[in-house]
Amino acid sequence: MYQETDHGFPATEFQARVARAQELMAKHCMDGLLLTSMDNIRYFVGVDSTFWESYTRPWFVLVPAAGDPIAIIPEIGRAIIEQTWMKEIRSWPSPRPEDEGTSLVVSAISDLPRRHGRVGAELGMELRLGIPVSQLNAIIGELIGVEIVDGALLIWLLRMIKSPAEVKKIKRAIDIAGAVYDEVPEFVRIGDSERKILREFRARLNAGGAGAVPTLICRSDVGGPFEITGGPRERPIADGDLLFIDTGTTFDGYFCDYDRNFQVGSATDALLFAHERVWDANEVGIKAAKPGVTAGYVFEQMAKALSSGVVDLNSNGRMGHGLGLRVTEPPSVRLEDQTVLEPGMVMCIEPALEYEPGKIVLHEETVVITEDGAQLLTPRAPKQLPPIR
Amino acid sequence: MYQETDHGFPATEFQARVARAQELMAKHCMDGLLLTSMDNIRYFVGVDSTFWESYTRPWFVLVPAAGDPIAIIPEIGRAIIEQTWMKEIRSWPSPRPEDEGTSLVVSAISDLPRRHGRVGAELGMELRLGIPVSQLNAIIGELIGVEIVDGALLIWLLRMIKSPAEVKKIKRAIDIAGAVYDEVPEFVRIGDSERKILREFRARLNAGGAGAVPTLICRSDVGGPFEITGGPRERPIADGDLLFIDTGTTFDGYFCDYDRNFQVGSATDALLFAHERVWDANEVGIKAAKPGVTAGYVFEQMAKALSSGVVDLNSNGRMGHGLGLRVTEPPSVRLEDQTVLEPGMVMCIEPALEYEPGKIVLHEETVVITEDGAQLLTPRAPKQLPPIR
Repeated sequence: MYQETDHGFPATEFQARVARAQELMAKHCMDGLLLTSMDNIRYFVGVDSTFWESYTRPWFVLVPAAGDPIAIIPEIGRAIIEQTWMKEIRSWPSPRPEDEGTSLVVSAISDLPRRHGRVGAELGMELRLGIPVSQLNAIIGELIGVEIVDGALLIWLLRMIKSPAEVKKIKRAIDIAGAVYDEVPEFVRIGDSERKILREFRARLNAGGAGAVPTLICRSDVGGPFEITGGPRERPIADGDLLFIDTGTTFDGYFCDYDRNFQVGSATDALLFAHERVWDANEVGIKAAKPGVTAGYVFEQMAKALSSGVVDLNSNGRMGHGLGLRVTEPPSVRLEDQTVLEPGMVMCIEPALEYEPGKIVLHEETVVITEDGAQLLTPRAPKQLPPIR
Repeated sequence: MYQETDHGFPATEFQARVARAQELMAKHCMDGLLLTSMDNIRYFVGVDSTFWESYTRPWFVLVPAAGDPIAIIPEIGRAIIEQTWMKEIRSWPSPRPEDEGTSLVVSAISDLPRRHGRVGAELGMELRLGIPVSQLNAIIGELIGVEIVDGALLIWLLRMIKSPAEVKKIKRAIDIAGAVYDEVPEFVRIGDSERKILREFRARLNAGGAGAVPTLICRSDVGGPFEITGGPRERPIADGDLLFIDTGTTFDGYFCDYDRNFQVGSATDALLFAHERVWDANEVGIKAAKPGVTAGYVFEQMAKALSSGVVDLNSNGRMGHGLGLRVTEPPSVRLEDQTVLEPGMVMCIEPALEYEPGKIVLHEETVVITEDGAQLLTPRAPKQLPPIR
């Protein structure tokens, strides 16, 4: 039963994250980690706000190599930060374009005990800076004797391993979406438009206790969608369509990310065959995702299950990815990715096949890696396509 | 009556935006404009996708100083870009971390007719880069004879002036939210939690035809909220509270942004007095927002209406801002902002008063600037606080 009170984490959760970050900082020779993006700040501070949508007032968190993190935030946000576990809070009256926190950040970094003269920031892989580039350059320009280096590897080494409490949040998001997927054959009818289906799906997610629903894709075409990234169309679903729905729904900031396919009216043998093949490949991927193997190995096993070769099998370029406070996180399940799977990683396993030109079948499930192998977090999709009439 | 078909723009709308961008590029001595962020790409291309939520595959649009824009996008997005007005589309198989579009972008920029040797990018004010900083640096490093300069001023000069078609989208978002605000006294009851109210509000926005609802804030406290940025709490609203709801709801990508206040049970005279004062200040701000005056002038007039001085009147640091594809856009309605208001600007006018420590009253309305002055787009908030019982 849905309880509205299951939000937030105890302070010990954040303290453990900081401790792990500090271990990694020692290894990566960094005196601190400067964070500006919504998901990284939420990871350390736990603050839940939709105020981030405005780009006027940047937020910063500086995690030192030892000791408590420092929040450097606009005055307007001070009252909510004071209600988190953070003790060290500095703020400025914002907007103040001529110094939108820059001098406070420079002075906080300059005051860090200097061992390596290096501070990590969100420069690289699968990260987005939460401040203007020109402000980052101004900070870099004002620092004396401290280099800003790429903190991406450190950040992802940290965030890739989920705590049990994080896995629970992801599971909640999955269950909320799962209940709605189950209802699709009841509330979707031949003739409904993609847009109508999407709107009803979103209503049910909201009623089921979802937070934001940043990603919700509904595509349908004869025998399968020709693409799976766009917004909904007015196109009514019709006999012979494969209806594809995929959602990145959140609970308390954490994402689920999985799809389901539905057969509208009658299916061709080619579709049924492709569907079973992709479902089987998903099974292979789930079994392959054990601690100690690489993400590339998981890709390879699914590729073999889908075809005799491994080339050009997937126009998406990968068959899965990490999941957490973002709908996709490292690693990528692609042949070249050498990330070794470890217990605590939450992975989407996502084989796809364009079985005829412009007809895609994609199956996505989510697992948490445990000592004993992959443990399914999603309710496994049925092997038989659920029908819509 | 809500029609699901009012999405998108005709190609002429995008062509006019490109033409205006190119006029500005000539003035600002740029050979092109490189765009990577969701809202800027949507502004020129019109693509609607929630796929952007994943940070794995960056998207680029290059608007040259003359001629058609060029989309440089991952293969997975090609099919939806092909359905837009874009003719020049280049793509690469993504993910490919070692060259995630970088070489295509460098070659497209290098091929631009070179007049100034300068290309604008999203470096500055109120912009966020849609790719990792390290990728921007790689692009800059590979370019020979072309400098990447800050395109923020150009982008905002362009986007600040809304076309009539854009104003219509904003108005639709406003009307969707307005219908729900009207229903608040019907569906909210003393004892409801902020979280419950927020969820019901969101359900009604969705049913009313809203797109994404990136910002929705519901705060309540005795005599007024002590802060207006945080997520909802379990706290039940009680007699004596001022209930504050503020939403950045979208229609077809365009935002509304306005709040409403509701009196829960009985109000103190101090609150009623403050409320009327802020309402009056809003009236002053709306009347002041005429073409030819600065954003700072509008602030000053409201500040005078709220107090005898202009200092420290507003802990938010401003009393309004632009609105469009982002919930807040330049200019800021703050004393120091010298942006001159022009017809076509859509402005949120937002005076606030902390009339007692920790008790905030804020009124926000939205206007479009016309030759004849400000024209209200929001239904004006009632001067009397609507009651909740």
